[in-house]
Amino acid sequence: MPSSLSSLAAEPDRLLPAEPGVRAIARNLLARVESLPIISPHGHVDAAVIEQNTPFPDPAALLVSPDHYVTRLIHASGVPLDRLRESNTSQPDSRSVWREFCTAWPLFEGTASGYWLRTQFSSVFGLAGELSAETADASYDAISAKLQEPGFRPRELFKDFNIEVLATTDDPLDTLASHKTIAEDPSFHGRVLPTFRPDAYLNIAHPNWVENVDRLIGLAGDGAGGYTGYIRALENRRRYFVERGAVSADHGVRTPLTLKLGRSEAEKLFTRARCGEWTAEDRDMFEGHMMYEMARMSVQDGLVMTMHPGSYRNHHLPSFEKFGSDTGHDIPFPVSYTEAIRPVLQDFGTAKDFHLVLFTLDETVFSRELAPLAGFYPSVYIGAPWWFLDAPDAMLRFRSAVTETAGFSRSSGFIDDTRAFCSIPARHDASRRIEASFLARLVAEHRVSEDRAHELIVDIVDSSPRRVFKL
Amino acid sequence: MPSSLSSLAAEPDRLLPAEPGVRAIARNLLARVESLPIISPHGHVDAAVIEQNTPFPDPAALLVSPDHYVTRLIHASGVPLDRLRESNTSQPDSRSVWREFCTAWPLFEGTASGYWLRTQFSSVFGLAGELSAETADASYDAISAKLQEPGFRPRELFKDFNIEVLATTDDPLDTLASHKTIAEDPSFHGRVLPTFRPDAYLNIAHPNWVENVDRLIGLAGDGAGGYTGYIRALENRRRYFVERGAVSADHGVRTPLTLKLGRSEAEKLFTRARCGEWTAEDRDMFEGHMMYEMARMSVQDGLVMTMHPGSYRNHHLPSFEKFGSDTGHDIPFPVSYTEAIRPVLQDFGTAKDFHLVLFTLDETVFSRELAPLAGFYPSVYIGAPWWFLDAPDAMLRFRSAVTETAGFSRSSGFIDDTRAFCSIPARHDASRRIEASFLARLVAEHRVSEDRAHELIVDIVDSSPRRVFKL
Amino acid sequence: MPSSLSSLAAEPDRLLPAEPGVRAIARNLLARVESLPIISPHGHVDAAVIEQNTPFPDPAALLVSPDHYVTRLIHASGVPLDRLRESNTSQPDSRSVWREFCTAWPLFEGTASGYWLRTQFSSVFGLAGELSAETADASYDAISAKLQEPGFRPRELFKDFNIEVLATTDDPLDTLASHKTIAEDPSFHGRVLPTFRPDAYLNIAHPNWVENVDRLIGLAGDGAGGYTGYIRALENRRRYFVERGAVSADHGVRTPLTLKLGRSEAEKLFTRARCGEWTAEDRDMFEGHMMYEMARMSVQDGLVMTMHPGSYRNHHLPSFEKFGSDTGHDIPFPVSYTEAIRPVLQDFGTAKDFHLVLFTLDETVFSRELAPLAGFYPSVYIGAPWWFLDAPDAMLRFRSAVTETAGFSRSSGFIDDTRAFCSIPARHDASRRIEASFLARLVAEHRVSEDRAHELIVDIVDSSPRRVFKL
Repeated sequence: MPSSLSSLAAEPDRLLPAEPGVRAIARNLLARVESLPIISPHGHVDAAVIEQNTPFPDPAALLVSPDHYVTRLIHASGVPLDRLRESNTSQPDSRSVWREFCTAWPLFEGTASGYWLRTQFSSVFGLAGELSAETADASYDAISAKLQEPGFRPRELFKDFNIEVLATTDDPLDTLASHKTIAEDPSFHGRVLPTFRPDAYLNIAHPNWVENVDRLIGLAGDGAGGYTGYIRALENRRRYFVERGAVSADHGVRTPLTLKLGRSEAEKLFTRARCGEWTAEDRDMFEGHMMYEMARMSVQDGLVMTMHPGSYRNHHLPSFEKFGSDTGHDIPFPVSYTEAIRPVLQDFGTAKDFHLVLFTLDETVFSRELAPLAGFYPSVYIGAPWWFLDAPDAMLRFRSAVTETAGFSRSSGFIDDTRAFCSIPARHDASRRIEASFLARLVAEHRVSEDRAHELIVDIVDSSPRRVFKL
Repeated sequence: MPSSLSSLAAEPDRLLPAEPGVRAIARNLLARVESLPIISPHGHVDAAVIEQNTPFPDPAALLVSPDHYVTRLIHASGVPLDRLRESNTSQPDSRSVWREFCTAWPLFEGTASGYWLRTQFSSVFGLAGELSAETADASYDAISAKLQEPGFRPRELFKDFNIEVLATTDDPLDTLASHKTIAEDPSFHGRVLPTFRPDAYLNIAHPNWVENVDRLIGLAGDGAGGYTGYIRALENRRRYFVERGAVSADHGVRTPLTLKLGRSEAEKLFTRARCGEWTAEDRDMFEGHMMYEMARMSVQDGLVMTMHPGSYRNHHLPSFEKFGSDTGHDIPFPVSYTEAIRPVLQDFGTAKDFHLVLFTLDETVFSRELAPLAGFYPSVYIGAPWWFLDAPDAMLRFRSAVTETAGFSRSSGFIDDTRAFCSIPARHDASRRIEASFLARLVAEHRVSEDRAHELIVDIVDSSPRRVFKL
Repeated sequence: MPSSLSSLAAEPDRLLPAEPGVRAIARNLLARVESLPIISPHGHVDAAVIEQNTPFPDPAALLVSPDHYVTRLIHASGVPLDRLRESNTSQPDSRSVWREFCTAWPLFEGTASGYWLRTQFSSVFGLAGELSAETADASYDAISAKLQEPGFRPRELFKDFNIEVLATTDDPLDTLASHKTIAEDPSFHGRVLPTFRPDAYLNIAHPNWVENVDRLIGLAGDGAGGYTGYIRALENRRRYFVERGAVSADHGVRTPLTLKLGRSEAEKLFTRARCGEWTAEDRDMFEGHMMYEMARMSVQDGLVMTMHPGSYRNHHLPSFEKFGSDTGHDIPFPVSYTEAIRPVLQDFGTAKDFHLVLFTLDETVFSRELAPLAGFYPSVYIGAPWWFLDAPDAMLRFRSAVTETAGFSRSSGFIDDTRAFCSIPARHDASRRIEASFLARLVAEHRVSEDRAHELIVDIVDSSPRRVFKL
């Protein structure tokens, strides 16, 4: 049997539209951007992996266990999570995790994860046959062998993948030592930039909020205590991140609410929360207020502000208790930015050089709110389709939803948002193919000239992320 | 003039995508499943019709008056409902109903109902010309004549339609005598299964709730009274349904809310409601609590649980008062499952063999909530597009919205949900054509191999409903 | 370099689907309606412009400054609004506005505004080269010269544009003198109809509500004061509009809420509001009550009622204070009609000759609510995609969302809603091309016969607006 895995993954027209005339236009557009470097302004790769350049452990630990996109769907088929990833009491054997994955491989047909995995297997690891339970050990061994080769170390892959910029996501108190080492290494040419991600210090419902805040104030509050020390410490740590090359501050908030509380009201909320006395309303108000503060600080220190509300985190409590967060059960819910983001936009919507990138998992927001907001406010950029939406059809729906109102200049450029390092090229490749497909349709429908489309796709793939993320 | 009715209905490529390459792939996929038997795990055909096998009455009574999909749109054009269906004071003449329908026939152009009707007229009743006011009497007579033929009796059609399984929707206190007779008849080979539908016993706002509950407790409460007898009676009647072949319990709730109330709180609510003392909040809380109870019972007795919230029933009070419910003015509203379904999923989301099929009339839920939920929880299946959404474009939007996150394994398979017996083949035919169309696009875009697509379409059409509904 | 502007704008297949078979069908459908007169039942052109027939001022004042679709996106690119339009303290020079616009022209690539502008430049003003900063003065001069020609006066363009009916939007106290003059001029053959737009008299939060109401009662209350005079004055002014040829009353409300308050409750609210004592809840209740009253009056006087809720008006307060309303920052938010519109539909949903056209900026409402509502209630019509949604892809999504439930007979026909007079032909042209594209797909998929599609497109383009707006 011919291998559908490698034949699909190697197919030059993959993801391009079927109609021959449109496909021909798309092919040319794709050719224009295929070899451009990867710019990844938001993701979850650990900088230490690049710094230390140690070989990746094994196929399961690299490709399955830590990737909640992947374990999620295997779990849905009835495989308990402890056979796929570490729990607080057990750790599955890598080879048996890989077997579970290979058995479940047909479930990924038609999914975004399936596309990324297939592309990796084929173009990174050179697998030829289709994955299956029967060949699980063989594919495990083949990938394992590759991972021992010098060319498969993180830095070599970084270069092979043609990554120019890779942003990580970091705790505000991180020393960013890995980033420093990388930046100072004359033999390494990529940029690995930290991102300021203060969720655990802003969300009073976070289980460690009080300890986090104590530590933050103690380490960076310049000797000031209480709310004053808290705000000063956040400002200080942001400045530290800027000095270490950070270009953005990222906010995974519950809702898009923003609020400008008076100083004394904010202080009272903060004090109550430190005593553990707060309500759900307090939690939302404080987070909303801190989003306003983050915007204010971004106006001052220049960090691009990114927000991605609307996910009910850790939806299945028993799984959270056993396996921790980011284990596949963050579930989106309806979101509306229009009223919620207004306090920030009143005051900073036209502020010089303030960039606010708004993401959503609720697609209804694209045409209804994000395109109109970004189509007026110079500070607002439409976050690329993200998480469940960074998939071929969803990305096409996104472009269709926003372009007619906001054009091509107001969106962020592709965000891979991944902790799966080896999937980065596949993700950017998919995005470029979809951008080419969308533009090719506009050309074929005589809505954009072919010349302009060639300029636009370069702008989308290369210039937009540089412009929006100040790279 | 060539007849557009029969030429469209007989067109072998109907509903398939226009692009010739994609269409060719779709044709092959369709050929794979066209002759598979019909599995209909949810619908509203009366079992007595099959049991008694009496001829269908007349064209209007069969195809127009009882079908709120159909009377709805004629009413919108200005024809009063009492010219189309029975009211509490009058009953229109069948032939004049048929004339109204034929006059209104052009209104159905482009609608799902129009497609089903046209297919029936052509392939079931052999009509050749287009329907019109002028030919209304002729088409009435032609169909009437057919309905007198022995081959047009319900059981003969059941066989002709290649139906293997047909689930009905039944009152919890129904004796299911018709189902028993059918099951025990060695000359009849189809399966006609009851479905437990307790809405009128769980919704305290139902006009007959108190009488219903009294009767339920009296007949099935094992002598216990009050809330204890109520819960026991429901458990007993579910067991009775299971013994009579039921595979699912269906819940037409107002909202997707589920709640786990303490025993005493539930009891108090129940007692207040029996005295007619309840608020809108009580109503929602009790229904939410009973959904939790229904899930608990499903875990125990194995009945698949199906939920379809989000329709404002009987929106036009004057029509409801005159014509009763299911008369075309149930109007959807926004729904969110994420928080609402959490109590049930906390406790039963990974329970062995628990199947929870979640339907929606609010399309936004597909990509935002249902695909992520079903992509993690082994118990959750995505209900097929239903009611206003079981139409070609809507079904394509559905597949596009859920597949990239949840693949093909997490959805329920097609649900015809119909009381229009003769439309069943047309509805399943439309669904199969759309599944073929969607998969053909993925093949043409090199996202799924053609071999896998052939396996997938069989799984979608045949294996999915068997697996999800435990058939 | 060949000019992409004129070559795109003159391309006969523009906006038609790329697949050659579908395109051929679409071309034929388009040919059927291309030369039909324009019927514009809702828009914002000033009747005095037609009455006085004075030349349009200059390119910037005609095409840029007053069009918030256009200034919006230039503003988002970082150009302050005062360089684009009049503020309360300054007025930019026309030529420099035009230069800003030409510099920003590439931002409009892919947008609806870009399409309309390009079409105007090419087919109305005969520009050949692409707009650019370099050629800004040349294009300014070229358009200015055209605007001085006798053939470019409003009445000549009205005729050239083949406009049959143009509705304006008018204050209830407007004398409608321009409309009268136009109607009585035997040399002018178009119909220019007023539209009753009472927002500023119904919304108690409007900054001038008290003065407006005082003036209304004083001028038209028949001597009665208070709420009685208010209601009578509204009835009187509506009658006046009807006598002057108005066919509709238009309502730009915050939410779709409708309410039937008792007389005394309404009176109390009204009285409190006149004293400036009202809450946000009062505001919504009074507006909801007045929507009920407007419906009641429409049933009596026959004015078609149009509603367009769901836009957060003047979102950016600093811009509003400096530039006034309609300056590009009205941002949509989620809307649901199902419960909100019920009070009106209970009482008037089947009222003879009552037409209620419901618009939305929240696309989710199309399939979920508007198609089901219009598919049952004879009074309800689905408003065409409007504002941000009157764009090619959005119009296709609209048709896909509503047709399968409501067919083609229940929608309003195209609404250009524009104050940009010269864009009217381009907007209707785009709409006709999209209707042809949608129908062509249905024909190619054998869902509608080609003959019927030819009838349907004439109905959609010509008969629907006449029928729905009683023209």
